[in-house]
Amino acid sequence: MEDFIFGKNSVIEALKSSERKVSKIIFLKGMKDTSKIETIISLAKENNIIYQFVPKEKFSKYSQYCHQGVIAYISPVEYIDLDNFLKKNKNDYKRVVVLDGVEDPHNTGAIIRTAACAGFDAIILQSRRNSLINSTVEKASAGAVNLIDIIMVNSLSNTIDKLKDNDFWIIASEVEAKDNYYDINYCNMNFALIMGGEHSGISSTILKKSDFKIKIPMLAKFNSLNVSNAAAIIIFESVQQILKNKNL
Amino acid sequence: MEDFIFGKNSVIEALKSSERKVSKIIFLKGMKDTSKIETIISLAKENNIIYQFVPKEKFSKYSQYCHQGVIAYISPVEYIDLDNFLKKNKNDYKRVVVLDGVEDPHNTGAIIRTAACAGFDAIILQSRRNSLINSTVEKASAGAVNLIDIIMVNSLSNTIDKLKDNDFWIIASEVEAKDNYYDINYCNMNFALIMGGEHSGISSTILKKSDFKIKIPMLAKFNSLNVSNAAAIIIFESVQQILKNKNL
Repeated sequence: MEDFIFGKNSVIEALKSSERKVSKIIFLKGMKDTSKIETIISLAKENNIIYQFVPKEKFSKYSQYCHQGVIAYISPVEYIDLDNFLKKNKNDYKRVVVLDGVEDPHNTGAIIRTAACAGFDAIILQSRRNSLINSTVEKASAGAVNLIDIIMVNSLSNTIDKLKDNDFWIIASEVEAKDNYYDINYCNMNFALIMGGEHSGISSTILKKSDFKIKIPMLAKFNSLNVSNAAAIIIFESVQQILKNKNL
Repeated sequence: MEDFIFGKNSVIEALKSSERKVSKIIFLKGMKDTSKIETIISLAKENNIIYQFVPKEKFSKYSQYCHQGVIAYISPVEYIDLDNFLKKNKNDYKRVVVLDGVEDPHNTGAIIRTAACAGFDAIILQSRRNSLINSTVEKASAGAVNLIDIIMVNSLSNTIDKLKDNDFWIIASEVEAKDNYYDINYCNMNFALIMGGEHSGISSTILKKSDFKIKIPMLAKFNSLNVSNAAAIIIFESVQQILKNKNL
């Protein structure tokens, strides 16, 4: 899955940047040939990037954007490999958030943002079940996608096994859990906090592998926290404990 | 400010419901006259609701909705008056969230949802500075707009004075505050938690009137929590304290 950017200047900037990888460019067929279009084409040729002139029907889905007849498909975020992440040296403990089926890009972005504020090391996403890092996620994260490692995995089950082999404790957020999120200890250990998707929650295979299952107790019958708010509550409980522990 | 609904069946349902107040209906000029359109017109006449046939240009801003040529403007949420809210009898203490300039309807909706889960009594919004309760807010709140009192006020400053006169403690969330949010006590008192807007935070007049200013300490240099996540962290700290206090 790829992101896109639009407009002549944005596409030129992306082509000149070393951080943004452009995979393909489309132009609106019959558009006026300007010097900027020539620049785009020559930059595309230089970098062996495919470009096409397509009929206006192909642009209809971008009609709400001011595209000026140019769309470039880009991979906005560099992912890091789980093994490379685990090999990284760190004086302190590692803390990660694992998203199991979070679909709304606003939620994914907000969780990345909160985890970055909390000094977490990484977000782990399953490529099949989660919203990927697109422009909406990036915008909702307020740029935090560049401040925290993003790890994309094929199998969440294998990932949990590997985390356990590397001395991570697995903490699953689950509405039906017995323990409250504030009754467990987050200090002096590597841990992975798993948040389930908006619709189906955490899959049963993953739940079974968890060391702790925790819930957020409510003060009302209405029990329906937004997943990014639930993540924020648990993440900052861990921050509170770690800060208090440091001051002991 | 009004919300709208679209589509023949939705408009008919809204006209039949006692909870949804329809103020005006527009039809697409030249549309086919069907029995459903006739039903809508007769219901509109019955209830003295204005309706108009308008050219398709007026419908262009609704093009992403499947409107079937009918749009009805409705007031989706009943607001409650501050005085009436304060007069309400309650065995327990009252807890409210005050939004000072929160503009993003997703944030407003998420905060309403979280406050409802936390058993808060009301959300106070300033009509001039906040996003109002529209369909986006309602959707983001997961229906919680109907579970918690929504109070719309003209002057936040007067509202704070009135809350103080009614034995509320005023707690302001402020990035530069000295005290941590978990170092104050939320039990056995009426309190109002004030959250500032995405851009400008809490206005200085309101800050000055606050009894407590609190911050959420980070574990990273990145200090940029989304306002709904920040609200969730503080709201659920208060829930945690109240639950633990009950079990003493």
